[in-house]
Amino acid sequence: MSRIALGLDFGTESVRAILVDAEGNELASKVDAFRHGQILECLPGGKETLPPRTALQCPADWLESASVATRDAVQSAGITPEEVVGVGVDFTSCTMLPTKIDGTPLCELDEFQARPMAWPKLWKHHGALTQAERMTELARERGESFLTRYGGTIGLEWFFPKMLETIETDLDVAEATDVWLEAGDWFVWQLVGVDAASLTRSTCQAGYKAMWSADEGYPSQEYLAAVHPRLAEAVANRMPGQMRSPGERAGNLCQAMASKLGLPEGIPVSTAIIDAHSGVPGVGAAETGTLVMVLGTSSCHMLNATNMVDIPGVAGVVDGGILPGLYGYETGQAAVGDAFAWLLKLLNLDSFDQLADDALQLPPGADGVTCLDWLNGCRTPLMDGNVRGAFTGLGMNHGPAHLYLAMMEASAFGVRWIIELLRNGGESIDAGEGVAVDQLIATGGLPHHNRAFVEVYADVIGMPIEIHPSTQGPAVGAAVLGMVAAGSEVTGFTNIADAARSMAAVPEAKRDLVLPRPERVQAYHELYQRYRRLAKAVSENQI
Amino acid sequence: MSRIALGLDFGTESVRAILVDAEGNELASKVDAFRHGQILECLPGGKETLPPRTALQCPADWLESASVATRDAVQSAGITPEEVVGVGVDFTSCTMLPTKIDGTPLCELDEFQARPMAWPKLWKHHGALTQAERMTELARERGESFLTRYGGTIGLEWFFPKMLETIETDLDVAEATDVWLEAGDWFVWQLVGVDAASLTRSTCQAGYKAMWSADEGYPSQEYLAAVHPRLAEAVANRMPGQMRSPGERAGNLCQAMASKLGLPEGIPVSTAIIDAHSGVPGVGAAETGTLVMVLGTSSCHMLNATNMVDIPGVAGVVDGGILPGLYGYETGQAAVGDAFAWLLKLLNLDSFDQLADDALQLPPGADGVTCLDWLNGCRTPLMDGNVRGAFTGLGMNHGPAHLYLAMMEASAFGVRWIIELLRNGGESIDAGEGVAVDQLIATGGLPHHNRAFVEVYADVIGMPIEIHPSTQGPAVGAAVLGMVAAGSEVTGFTNIADAARSMAAVPEAKRDLVLPRPERVQAYHELYQRYRRLAKAVSENQI
Repeated sequence: MSRIALGLDFGTESVRAILVDAEGNELASKVDAFRHGQILECLPGGKETLPPRTALQCPADWLESASVATRDAVQSAGITPEEVVGVGVDFTSCTMLPTKIDGTPLCELDEFQARPMAWPKLWKHHGALTQAERMTELARERGESFLTRYGGTIGLEWFFPKMLETIETDLDVAEATDVWLEAGDWFVWQLVGVDAASLTRSTCQAGYKAMWSADEGYPSQEYLAAVHPRLAEAVANRMPGQMRSPGERAGNLCQAMASKLGLPEGIPVSTAIIDAHSGVPGVGAAETGTLVMVLGTSSCHMLNATNMVDIPGVAGVVDGGILPGLYGYETGQAAVGDAFAWLLKLLNLDSFDQLADDALQLPPGADGVTCLDWLNGCRTPLMDGNVRGAFTGLGMNHGPAHLYLAMMEASAFGVRWIIELLRNGGESIDAGEGVAVDQLIATGGLPHHNRAFVEVYADVIGMPIEIHPSTQGPAVGAAVLGMVAAGSEVTGFTNIADAARSMAAVPEAKRDLVLPRPERVQAYHELYQRYRRLAKAVSENQI
Repeated sequence: MSRIALGLDFGTESVRAILVDAEGNELASKVDAFRHGQILECLPGGKETLPPRTALQCPADWLESASVATRDAVQSAGITPEEVVGVGVDFTSCTMLPTKIDGTPLCELDEFQARPMAWPKLWKHHGALTQAERMTELARERGESFLTRYGGTIGLEWFFPKMLETIETDLDVAEATDVWLEAGDWFVWQLVGVDAASLTRSTCQAGYKAMWSADEGYPSQEYLAAVHPRLAEAVANRMPGQMRSPGERAGNLCQAMASKLGLPEGIPVSTAIIDAHSGVPGVGAAETGTLVMVLGTSSCHMLNATNMVDIPGVAGVVDGGILPGLYGYETGQAAVGDAFAWLLKLLNLDSFDQLADDALQLPPGADGVTCLDWLNGCRTPLMDGNVRGAFTGLGMNHGPAHLYLAMMEASAFGVRWIIELLRNGGESIDAGEGVAVDQLIATGGLPHHNRAFVEVYADVIGMPIEIHPSTQGPAVGAAVLGMVAAGSEVTGFTNIADAARSMAAVPEAKRDLVLPRPERVQAYHELYQRYRRLAKAVSENQI
């Protein structure tokens, strides 16, 4: 009998169900779009316009779409459901919701269905800006130790600011809530059968989005109470559950969900993982020193290491945050595909194809044009949502191709900066030892339709970059975790690294490597300094 | 009998002949394109490719086109030639050439017609870059007093660098030259009959382009000899002529040229003036305190004052340089219309019409976008051809309209900076008293087809701006000077101010004034500081 795992990959608009066997064959991959998609304008069945910066989802959509996608995948793969040995789940994060003690989302109760705060807040919900700022300020004033693990800033998309927003704007909802949790954890809870004892929380989601660490737990009650007494109370009493790492078994598929998904009751279910982080096992990178660059609308660069270093501007360092037993480093760039889409629209073009040839024939440095791609702010290393992008060095001889190359270079310089920070353990002269970065893997949508972009990255960073062939790294990663959760007696895999290597890595001889071109690498050493001068001037002078 | 003056306005591609009467009626205006236009690729009759940065003209074209345009104008005006009482000439500058003692251009001699250095160098000829840099450096080292009148830098388009280029690259031509002179002076010399005694040089051209002043003359022989002994020799022996201000009579129309132009022999001819500077009398601004902004491909801002102040970055302060008895201040911006043409091309648009409405509905500051319009470098105040333009503050919410408004604002901030420098007498705390700037007149091509642009100027500067209706300010200015040269016994005008007011100014009640909008003026005070921060950061940090 085959050993097949199901990965469920929950995105912003849809869920993907993928079936992968132990040898890494993708047997089927099916997507189903959420009936309500993103809820941005008004609530389902409602007419009132939602406040700006609101982005919600509907929990029933998750269940319904997961059912459709899983059944489609099993049918398309031509397998029997009994061949599926485990289930893994990755989810956008921090997407979070308030529920009753039996897991019922508050938004499904009559008295709360018209209250926006009762609905799941999607990762990109930006209603908690002032809350995040106050929490950061207070943590700085109090010298809270957790802050250094997050580059000194609490993100407005994170768990506690979103909770606090509800406490401060709709106290009825906050008071009626028994359990606050991540949507990924909620879905896994549904899979394994909902009772209070069965709730597993992911160290990945808690670590990166709720300032939790294995050593210190959540931020202290003193700090939380200083932020808001009800926040402290909620963290103490309304966040039950057992912490587990992705790949650890959260439980076994319950009868109700087995029937909904058309899978055998009782198969193991892995603890959830954040979608981006799932890309790490999803490209077979389960060892230390491999930076996995998930290049899409924005970028997430993840790395596992055996040591923990506080690096300014790294979005999070979590023990067991990506893989058990390793420190997971998460860094990111706020606009990548987004930035290029913006440039394309600005230049009134249909595609970059017509520009690419011209751009790639330009010398490194785009004949003097320097770009900052901070159109959405700068995630790593500045953790500043307010800084903005720039083009400098503009002369009469420059045109669209120069801007295009300069923007690719800006994105690449940003990664180089991140790698240097990781390696050096920060920028100050007395920075400690850093962590190893030996290997680069690019995944996500961008590398597959824009190879030139990866070439610029390789030249600027001065290292070969493997383009991973999968366009569904996170979904594959979820399947890897589902396989591992099934246990070695069934799968033969005793750890995630082995499973990831077998199911997701490309054999060395078959890897698609983009090599740096030495003459361009040389030129980029100096040009990188020009970029850093601009970054410094822009961020320091409010220009 | 009417009192009518002829203005001949020599541009880069053509000459315009305009006939204006003493009351300011434009009776006719005709253009004739130079047969050889700009000579950029190879010499007439030659096949050899010219070196890069070469831009030449053909003297025979000037005579031929002036004849055609003048005859066309007289015919079109329906006047008799005898009604023309005087002739004025404005010319691009520094456009200069080497001639024999009888005025014959060297390029018309068989032995030199294939030598590029024997031809007139057009103002935009950029072959003398290294010469200009060496001359500047040496002047700085020696602390030459003339340098402060030119903002500390000798331009690569000026007279002596162009001479030196010939001395250093084609000594035969330099040795065969009897007279080095500006093309405007050469044309006036042709008009009044060519003998050595009849050569008049314009204080305007000498003052702004050859570092001449009434007090000190040309730069000292010591300095020139230090640059190159043959340069000192040439200035001493090969630059005969009598210095006169524009509007002063250079002589009377000789028989040969009278017959060529179809005008009466003996009518007075004014000393030449630089084309941009001719725009000052050309819009009726013959008093102190009026800044005349000639807005075209690039911009030239001119002002007359009764006192002389050394202001860093002002391109030239010349006693009698524009009008007799007043100090003429010349400042400028290197890219204006040019910069907008560049932006239009970058944005892949046919015209700004579709953007203008959106741009003008944006708040001051273009929602956070700041621009530097230094696509051709910065003339005033930095006098730096190497600095380049920028857009900063770019976010996902910005589009073409934001860039368009930001660039208009950049241009306006540049003028505000110039006005502040003029008023304060420089930027340093111990700067002396400045000069008055009470009134603004916009002329040139841009204000007539882009009123929004002038509105942004008014808001940013916080002063009303008069848009002068003439699109041919320099040509009208030349006619004013021709009228004045004719003498008060014929014209009734005893000075340029009276003639300019009568012939070119718009009566106060009929002026087209663009008024600043108070709520926007207020906002621009702070935004101007943002622009200055960017200008400082970009110019100081090589970004």
